[in-house]
Amino acid sequence: MMFPEDEYMMRMNYTKQKMQEYGVEVLIVSNPSNMYYLTGYNAWSFYVHQVVVVMIDQDQPLWVGREMDAHSAKVTTWLDDDHIIPYPDEFVQSSIRHPMDFVANILAELGQGERKIGLEMDAFYFTAMCYERMLQGLPNAEFKNSSTLVNWVRLIKSDLEIEYMRKAAVLVDKAMKAAYDTVGVGVRENEVAAAIYHAQIAGTADFGGDYTSIVPMLPTNENTASPHLTWTDRKYKKGDYLTVEIAGCYERYHAPMARTMALGEPPDEIKKLADVVKEGIETTIARIQPGMTAEEVEDIWSQSIAKRGFFKDSRLGYSIGCSYPPDWGEHTVSFRKGDLTVMQPNMTFHLMPGIWLDHYGVEITESILITEEGCETLATTPRDLYIK
Amino acid sequence: MMFPEDEYMMRMNYTKQKMQEYGVEVLIVSNPSNMYYLTGYNAWSFYVHQVVVVMIDQDQPLWVGREMDAHSAKVTTWLDDDHIIPYPDEFVQSSIRHPMDFVANILAELGQGERKIGLEMDAFYFTAMCYERMLQGLPNAEFKNSSTLVNWVRLIKSDLEIEYMRKAAVLVDKAMKAAYDTVGVGVRENEVAAAIYHAQIAGTADFGGDYTSIVPMLPTNENTASPHLTWTDRKYKKGDYLTVEIAGCYERYHAPMARTMALGEPPDEIKKLADVVKEGIETTIARIQPGMTAEEVEDIWSQSIAKRGFFKDSRLGYSIGCSYPPDWGEHTVSFRKGDLTVMQPNMTFHLMPGIWLDHYGVEITESILITEEGCETLATTPRDLYIK
Repeated sequence: MMFPEDEYMMRMNYTKQKMQEYGVEVLIVSNPSNMYYLTGYNAWSFYVHQVVVVMIDQDQPLWVGREMDAHSAKVTTWLDDDHIIPYPDEFVQSSIRHPMDFVANILAELGQGERKIGLEMDAFYFTAMCYERMLQGLPNAEFKNSSTLVNWVRLIKSDLEIEYMRKAAVLVDKAMKAAYDTVGVGVRENEVAAAIYHAQIAGTADFGGDYTSIVPMLPTNENTASPHLTWTDRKYKKGDYLTVEIAGCYERYHAPMARTMALGEPPDEIKKLADVVKEGIETTIARIQPGMTAEEVEDIWSQSIAKRGFFKDSRLGYSIGCSYPPDWGEHTVSFRKGDLTVMQPNMTFHLMPGIWLDHYGVEITESILITEEGCETLATTPRDLYIK
Repeated sequence: MMFPEDEYMMRMNYTKQKMQEYGVEVLIVSNPSNMYYLTGYNAWSFYVHQVVVVMIDQDQPLWVGREMDAHSAKVTTWLDDDHIIPYPDEFVQSSIRHPMDFVANILAELGQGERKIGLEMDAFYFTAMCYERMLQGLPNAEFKNSSTLVNWVRLIKSDLEIEYMRKAAVLVDKAMKAAYDTVGVGVRENEVAAAIYHAQIAGTADFGGDYTSIVPMLPTNENTASPHLTWTDRKYKKGDYLTVEIAGCYERYHAPMARTMALGEPPDEIKKLADVVKEGIETTIARIQPGMTAEEVEDIWSQSIAKRGFFKDSRLGYSIGCSYPPDWGEHTVSFRKGDLTVMQPNMTFHLMPGIWLDHYGVEITESILITEEGCETLATTPRDLYIK
């Protein structure tokens, strides 16, 4: 177990407090990051349906999942074995049986079937079919949307979580260096990706790396306008420029980072845009204070780039912490207009000032920690446009 | 584009034929593998909602996704630019606006709002909230579950798809060799994972590797009873044994494989179980014939291991092809009782004879291709218990 039992109990308490606020007595957690956060459950099994059930009047949640994964639950969670409930393999990807039928039965048997039940309605792995089966299986329950209930509990990190994120930042520094050391004329894009992966996972002499929730994104030239392209096996040519968006991950905790690189002198428009982005992020980092709202943070950036004639219509960043594929974002706070979340110490964000124009883009980003005095970056890689 | 336009048109035709069978006029495709299969769309953007819409009377589908991903759609799909419809960033992870509101509006504007609309009700990224918003947004539509409609179209591969899977198999052979070459007493588990990743992605002199839809799974000792555990940074000790389940991936096409390895002479019970598994898979591979049902394939295996006193209560394998995280399975055919799918040439499967007992497990698996005469394995790594 990666956290002391005390810390899990505190997470449970905050979750129950929020359940009370939401008017929810039973919470069905399908988001693997939330399952991990509450119980420690850590296995690549979220491609089948599985849940953690929190009951407001019970100390321990239940884990309900596939039979062959029950042993993983026993070795990775703090739950007693009798709180780990496996369903038979005949429920897996069947057109007849659905795992949520099994979950509904368990809840009915435990006398939970007529309570107010929170569902993570927009969580990645809670499908439309899961919802339909819950409605059918528990006709007397009252369902409420609790999509990001646990995500909001995750917002302020403990010191141990911050320690893991600092380790993740060491890994992302190493991986970004590996990208820069490997990229070159005649090298294939996939070779840069391979070097990044190796650095992320091989880690340091002191600790190893975990898999990141998003794979390396390495668009080149015109494709830098498309931030979520991955890589091909094309060879880099002289004059190519690319963005590298990656993370380090330690025990599911992430520190993302993006940099922009060029092979030889890049076009003036790229250099100019990189200056604007760098000035914008540095101005923002210098001025973030606890007590500010998320939209005020965004406004610092917007004003900085507006002076240079630029405008970014996508959010400036988002909350980060522990997570599973397909996203390392926490799906709570976004730096954008209308988000009134107040910055507090031990919140962590990916400050994501990418600007993507029609034919090119530049990304220079940082994972940041809100402190008592302002904010600090977790990683140390310089924020330059890298020219090789 | 990785396939000629003819091949995409054929995929569209088979999809429309199946839509007619299902009684569906409009199909909303959310599964990234199905989006890729029909259009070529390939970017790591499935952490926000995005869809491909197939209309039974239109040649081209629509792509609807986030504004910053529209350029990726332009460069990776065969669609005309006016079939690529971006939604603004304010729809992303918002508590007010939902991307499916946008999709519903588009469909209404195009006069599709009162038709029979198929939804992938149990696809990973089609959440309960997506469904609720579609119901609200198109109150006069008639919705039908079409969860695996396109998945079934994907079942029989084209020769070009098989060629990609053969390349994926070259990559998995390389990656399994890297695992074996790296593992050893005093080596950390994450270093084996790093070596696997590097081999998967660096590829060969002729072609590079793509990211696999599942990360390396490397449980050790008692944890081999938990097939979906990944890795830690613990050092291997003399006498350890481990299972290695990985894949190679070329252009989203996968060839998975698992092997079992031991550092020094493994316990007799592991060796005995490995013999049973090896005999079972080899008997099954020798006897698979086109024309058999999936449950008949499973029965060959069951009878083989029953002679030795063993029983496996999870399915023996599943259909494979192109895919995105979190799964490389196609979610159609499973080798298990009750699956009456008839084996046909150019179907491809992960034959997955893992046996997981209470305190240990053994996996020796193969990616197979059904041929006119029987079946062949895509990869070449010998099926031994690896002792180092």
